[in-house]
Amino acid sequence: MLRPRKAVLKVKEYHPPLGGRQGLRLDFNENTAGCSPRVLARLGALGLETLAKYPERESVERAVAGFLRLAPAQVLLTNGVDEAIHLLCQTYIEPGDELLIPVPTYSMYEIYAAAAGAEIVGVPAGEDFRFPAEALLRQITPRTRLIAVATPNNPTGSVAGESVLLKLAEAAPDAALLVDEAYFEFHQKTVMPRIGSIPNLFVARTFSKAFGLAGLRAGVLAGCAEQMNLVRRVGSPYSVNAVALACVQEAIADTAHIDGYVTQVRRGRERVQSVLRELGIKFWPSEANFVLFLIGEQRLAFVEAMRRRGILVRDRNSDPGCAGCVRITIGTDAQTDVAIAALREVIGELSGANAPLVVTRTSLG
Amino acid sequence: MLRPRKAVLKVKEYHPPLGGRQGLRLDFNENTAGCSPRVLARLGALGLETLAKYPERESVERAVAGFLRLAPAQVLLTNGVDEAIHLLCQTYIEPGDELLIPVPTYSMYEIYAAAAGAEIVGVPAGEDFRFPAEALLRQITPRTRLIAVATPNNPTGSVAGESVLLKLAEAAPDAALLVDEAYFEFHQKTVMPRIGSIPNLFVARTFSKAFGLAGLRAGVLAGCAEQMNLVRRVGSPYSVNAVALACVQEAIADTAHIDGYVTQVRRGRERVQSVLRELGIKFWPSEANFVLFLIGEQRLAFVEAMRRRGILVRDRNSDPGCAGCVRITIGTDAQTDVAIAALREVIGELSGANAPLVVTRTSLG
Repeated sequence: MLRPRKAVLKVKEYHPPLGGRQGLRLDFNENTAGCSPRVLARLGALGLETLAKYPERESVERAVAGFLRLAPAQVLLTNGVDEAIHLLCQTYIEPGDELLIPVPTYSMYEIYAAAAGAEIVGVPAGEDFRFPAEALLRQITPRTRLIAVATPNNPTGSVAGESVLLKLAEAAPDAALLVDEAYFEFHQKTVMPRIGSIPNLFVARTFSKAFGLAGLRAGVLAGCAEQMNLVRRVGSPYSVNAVALACVQEAIADTAHIDGYVTQVRRGRERVQSVLRELGIKFWPSEANFVLFLIGEQRLAFVEAMRRRGILVRDRNSDPGCAGCVRITIGTDAQTDVAIAALREVIGELSGANAPLVVTRTSLG
Repeated sequence: MLRPRKAVLKVKEYHPPLGGRQGLRLDFNENTAGCSPRVLARLGALGLETLAKYPERESVERAVAGFLRLAPAQVLLTNGVDEAIHLLCQTYIEPGDELLIPVPTYSMYEIYAAAAGAEIVGVPAGEDFRFPAEALLRQITPRTRLIAVATPNNPTGSVAGESVLLKLAEAAPDAALLVDEAYFEFHQKTVMPRIGSIPNLFVARTFSKAFGLAGLRAGVLAGCAEQMNLVRRVGSPYSVNAVALACVQEAIADTAHIDGYVTQVRRGRERVQSVLRELGIKFWPSEANFVLFLIGEQRLAFVEAMRRRGILVRDRNSDPGCAGCVRITIGTDAQTDVAIAALREVIGELSGANAPLVVTRTSLG
């Protein structure tokens, strides 16, 4: 009888609630305004040959490397950041090795590492979801092979500073340190310039968030050339599709478009946080394009009431330490107007209901 | 110091010669006429939202399942067949397990299996690249965990019949049998209807060949629902991009377009084989959209002389048993006219050169 590897049975199934997303998409931290018009123009001009030919990634990889001020040998385009994580797990993790992550965080680190046979060592975030630097350092063992840190982190929006990241890399020289900067554009701080000088450092970026290309699947994994050469071996030369390659080239040529969008998101983030503060709703200050806040036991009613107003937000109740929490993506100024009006209405409505809304306000410290 | 898994060091690096492919593309077995106009129309109509949203594969998976007369739970869309192979290796292969393949064959089976830590057991094809059924059966061991059979096979064009495939599946109940039908449309024979009744059978299909969508990266892995449920666990829910999903839906709705193209390819295949026979060039009768033939020591001069005439063909000299061999993809009637004229010229030219062209004609039996 055909049996899977034992590790496969331990992998949590991941079913993102994607079906039938009708409304203002403030649930998946996507770009809610859309990519550069240059990208759309390129898409419309693509012909039969681009579709029929196997994708040729090299020239685009060179362009992206230039954009990131890295050498082409330090950069691999990936089928979204998911493939970058997958490749790192495949390259470095033997069964019984350890993945070290702060929790809560992006769920795919754990899924791919578990599939590779890793033990998952999850270190709870500190008070108010602060990056648990000291606790992580204490959990490094000779079996630690991958440390994954999203900064800004999802779903909390909190960040890890460069000095502490470098300390982690230094303290675990036998491990790969992945710094996942998927939300970099909304925070603007990066360890990318350290690529090349720190041999076990990898940085991931994505075109799925600020760039508005989640549908195309284009991520970036950067690392020192020597390690990237190993990572490349386990991947497919065709994993990034030709439409993504064409569109990425346009996207990086129109950073003004991104800058304008990011400015709105950062402004909207402050506005949403102010309103939550004013309404007495506990939230966690965010450096990303979303804000996590605490609704408590009425969270499902909250999500549903927002949905009835045409706004999709994401229940994060099942993330560790996030009981009762909801995450809202921040979009454009106009979308923030709409979101804030709905937040006020729904919170007002639920506060009037039987179960008081803010009773659990300080339950997470 | 960061070191990769031992298996990674054993993986052969794979660098397809993709750079700067100028001319008639008879080198990668792609569709040379292009996909259905319906696909192109859909591509042109895609908007910002399709690009910005995470891909939702379920409805397309249902449509593809219907197209294949399977249940949705038996079908997984993949980022090309490469991802299907990768997922099977990740799901079933522990270090030290065995991959059993006839050789020569498609190179990615070996690459992904080696990355998963498998020992590669390659069984040489029989005389004239016949499918080595008996030899494969003899090589099954308790550690055989994946058997990969491309039918029609690449680069030989030879096929494996249903009865012998079913015998393999039965003889190795602890192994996954992958029947890779990437070239199905040019052969029209399939074991797909056996999905569901043979628990360890998987069938792969692709939109990269007959359908003309190699650039988009869309493959299909089919298997019984129970096993597919395990395979899904190790993959990403977002691995197939939204443009591919949209285009696949159109592609399967316009099979007339494919039928017309396949008719031309099958006609062209016979014509090219006749010309090779007439010119005294050894070739292997093919059921795919390509023909493998033996040029011998002058193969590089041959490939270059074809290139000077604007035609790209593929040197297969380094495949096991393929010393001196070249592979030509078959395209439309008009492209076959051009290819045949060039074949006649180049073979005439090289036959007149110092080293006689057909000296090794029977060297492979």
